[in-house]
Amino acid sequence: VSSGRLGMETGAAPIPAALPYFVAFSQLLGLTVVAVTGAWLGLYRGGVAWESALQFNVHPLCMVIGLVFLQGDALLVYRVFRNEAKRTTKVLHGLLHVFALVIALVGLVAVFDYHKKKGYADLYSLHSWCGILVFVLYFVQWIVGFSFFLFPGASFSLRSRYRPQHVFFGATIFVLSVGTALLGLKEALLFKLGADYSKFEPEGVLANTLGLLLVCFGVVVLYILTPPEWKRPSQAEEQALSMDFKTLTEGDSPSSQ
Amino acid sequence: VSSGRLGMETGAAPIPAALPYFVAFSQLLGLTVVAVTGAWLGLYRGGVAWESALQFNVHPLCMVIGLVFLQGDALLVYRVFRNEAKRTTKVLHGLLHVFALVIALVGLVAVFDYHKKKGYADLYSLHSWCGILVFVLYFVQWIVGFSFFLFPGASFSLRSRYRPQHVFFGATIFVLSVGTALLGLKEALLFKLGADYSKFEPEGVLANTLGLLLVCFGVVVLYILTPPEWKRPSQAEEQALSMDFKTLTEGDSPSSQ
Repeated sequence: VSSGRLGMETGAAPIPAALPYFVAFSQLLGLTVVAVTGAWLGLYRGGVAWESALQFNVHPLCMVIGLVFLQGDALLVYRVFRNEAKRTTKVLHGLLHVFALVIALVGLVAVFDYHKKKGYADLYSLHSWCGILVFVLYFVQWIVGFSFFLFPGASFSLRSRYRPQHVFFGATIFVLSVGTALLGLKEALLFKLGADYSKFEPEGVLANTLGLLLVCFGVVVLYILTPPEWKRPSQAEEQALSMDFKTLTEGDSPSSQ
Repeated sequence: VSSGRLGMETGAAPIPAALPYFVAFSQLLGLTVVAVTGAWLGLYRGGVAWESALQFNVHPLCMVIGLVFLQGDALLVYRVFRNEAKRTTKVLHGLLHVFALVIALVGLVAVFDYHKKKGYADLYSLHSWCGILVFVLYFVQWIVGFSFFLFPGASFSLRSRYRPQHVFFGATIFVLSVGTALLGLKEALLFKLGADYSKFEPEGVLANTLGLLLVCFGVVVLYILTPPEWKRPSQAEEQALSMDFKTLTEGDSPSSQ
């Protein structure tokens, strides 16, 4: 907050009028997605636990929280924190992705462990193929992103050339995550409901609604990312190219507050 | 071709070096997707016919050809035809979408007709909900796009303000189409294979591969759409703002060849 105030004092760019409403709507949708996932697992799947047959249910809950909600929010960081120090925003972006990755890893361990205990086969379905692809791409993207943007070695020109690729593949991995969640939801419904799915069972209707909410969250996040005029002003980026320079000249360091 | 040659004579912008390779790769992938869909239906589902139980198979084939391959190609028109008259490119873009829409409509009629004959319920699954959403959005996008960009009434400023929305929702509807195809593929597999899906049945492996190919086609199309430097040069757009003016001053009309 104090850094934002400082930003204003040093001539911060104005916030686009519609942006806060779209961000608020995205958060409302994201939290609704997590809540409806919890409600689905609680009402129709017996809830969530590690040491029981409910271990499977840890998987969808972790994946929705990590690879949908937190990953989506990590993408929005540069739209929301427009006047903070660039490095602070970068670290927050990287940290949200770390949280997402760790939560997704717990979700992965849950399903592999559950399959092992039950003697089920692994990695035979389209959902699992897409899921492994998404997880590997997400991990690689994080490592490459860290090496280029947070590790101090990469040059300005290297960063400029890699940035569009990072943004494109970031958005792509997010979309693939949402798509993989839909495939998993569909799989869980068909395995349990079978032919009853066509009788408009309450679980089916709730899960379909959850699927549409997942799609809406994905679309709203991408909508916020798209307009060039909603991007973090490049002036702030240029100022922050050298944090040491910025710290020296503007006093914008954590210790100065 | 002649118009392209004329374009060069009047100072056409150079084609980005990597663009033709990516476009060729997208077409190779798109045709592979259609071929693998045909192979799946032919090898494991008895082929395609209208007047029999094979009527259902018309649905996936039409949807993949219309709402994946042709829709994807319609989005690429402005990247491929860089120096043609703007109006020609617009008409081609609109026509490809009409073909896609008509083929998708045949695919929709096929599945509803098949359900009716078999006495199956309609519109209970997440695939069907997403499918109807995609089809309605696609139709609305076409009507609105036609009204703004091909119908002569809309002003330049109105077109400029609507264009980013048209582009965003075009890409979104394309991604939703690919996602809906994956959900349908998954549904078809689980209904038929059931527990055998986990035994790595050849049909399951082929269909999973088809799913990944669909994802790859979607990603490559969006990758081609993304770089600003791969967009149709704005010089050509500005020149073509008034076709009559362009025709008079450059002689670039079909009748002049």
